[in-house]
Amino acid sequence: MVRQIEFSLPPFPRGYHLITGIIEKQIKDLPETGLVHIFIKHTSAALTINENADPTVRDDFESFLNKLVPEYDPVYRHVFEGADDMPAHLKASLLGPAITIPVSRRRLNMGTWQGIYLCEFRNHGGSRKLVITIYGE
Amino acid sequence: MVRQIEFSLPPFPRGYHLITGIIEKQIKDLPETGLVHIFIKHTSAALTINENADPTVRDDFESFLNKLVPEYDPVYRHVFEGADDMPAHLKASLLGPAITIPVSRRRLNMGTWQGIYLCEFRNHGGSRKLVITIYGE
Amino acid sequence: MVRQIEFSLPPFPRGYHLITGIIEKQIKDLPETGLVHIFIKHTSAALTINENADPTVRDDFESFLNKLVPEYDPVYRHVFEGADDMPAHLKASLLGPAITIPVSRRRLNMGTWQGIYLCEFRNHGGSRKLVITIYGE
Repeated sequence: MVRQIEFSLPPFPRGYHLITGIIEKQIKDLPETGLVHIFIKHTSAALTINENADPTVRDDFESFLNKLVPEYDPVYRHVFEGADDMPAHLKASLLGPAITIPVSRRRLNMGTWQGIYLCEFRNHGGSRKLVITIYGE
Repeated sequence: MVRQIEFSLPPFPRGYHLITGIIEKQIKDLPETGLVHIFIKHTSAALTINENADPTVRDDFESFLNKLVPEYDPVYRHVFEGADDMPAHLKASLLGPAITIPVSRRRLNMGTWQGIYLCEFRNHGGSRKLVITIYGE
Repeated sequence: MVRQIEFSLPPFPRGYHLITGIIEKQIKDLPETGLVHIFIKHTSAALTINENADPTVRDDFESFLNKLVPEYDPVYRHVFEGADDMPAHLKASLLGPAITIPVSRRRLNMGTWQGIYLCEFRNHGGSRKLVITIYGE
């Protein structure tokens, strides 16, 4: 069994956002055992899995990644789409465009403290398109 | 065919550890062709694939990542779980919670020098839970 | 349906290279719906997805990652394979050895601006082996 859903997230501000609930609403009727692959069709945003309880973790992701991959770095030549653009591309590859999560007993089998983050790296990224692929039996 | 195994690793000290042998013991009877997905159910540890021969590579991962994502960075607000906690969350997303490896002729089809690393970012992370999903035919 | 292709890329110079066209030539007859997993069998090169239009983005990846993970860092103990070797291992895990892309209507379902990058971290990496696994129905 392979099933696919393509949909758009609502626009989120720059930062790290817990979207586990939004994803779960899209993936009803999971297989007994399998995998869910979630892919973001953009090069200036990413998906990751991290701590789902304390919002300061998401704030610290924003602060720290902004230091790690700063705007206005003198090496950048790709600067004509805004100061947030090239850092967004770099962060997108460091965190990655996709996550794959096991499905067990018809549910996402993540750890207690794991949640799905949308990482929005642009100041005005707008709505982001995701493709979810579910397979299993 | 989809098959899943959930199990706990023994506790490892902070650092990078080659666990290829432990994984291979868990995944007998691989399909002729397929994929193995390995997922860690934690937000302060990660899985990656890297050099399997020289232990100084794993030491250098520990030293370098500690510099790249330092403890006591003044931007951190999430500090109440210990100095190693927020860096662990950041490293977990930089390296990722899952790896997917091709299966060919009933074996993991990695390169000669590739091995599976457990990346333990906490000082006392304890036992870590993995979910392995095998599919193929 | 599971299908697998193993092949070697031509040698690329150090840097970031768009290989979407090379990959597409290898994966004819995609399933209606599914996933394509692409795995690099090396620990000093990586695969990622990023901007496919402006070559300065790839140049900026090379410049910025060289600053982020510098050669001759004093913490490195694994130095006997050349100044580019340990940074290559670190970059390989930061960007990752594999990507998984959804297949929809028999085509790779990436965003308009997404392309597949070979990230060659060695000065003389030579030809790199890839394993592509296609599954779906």
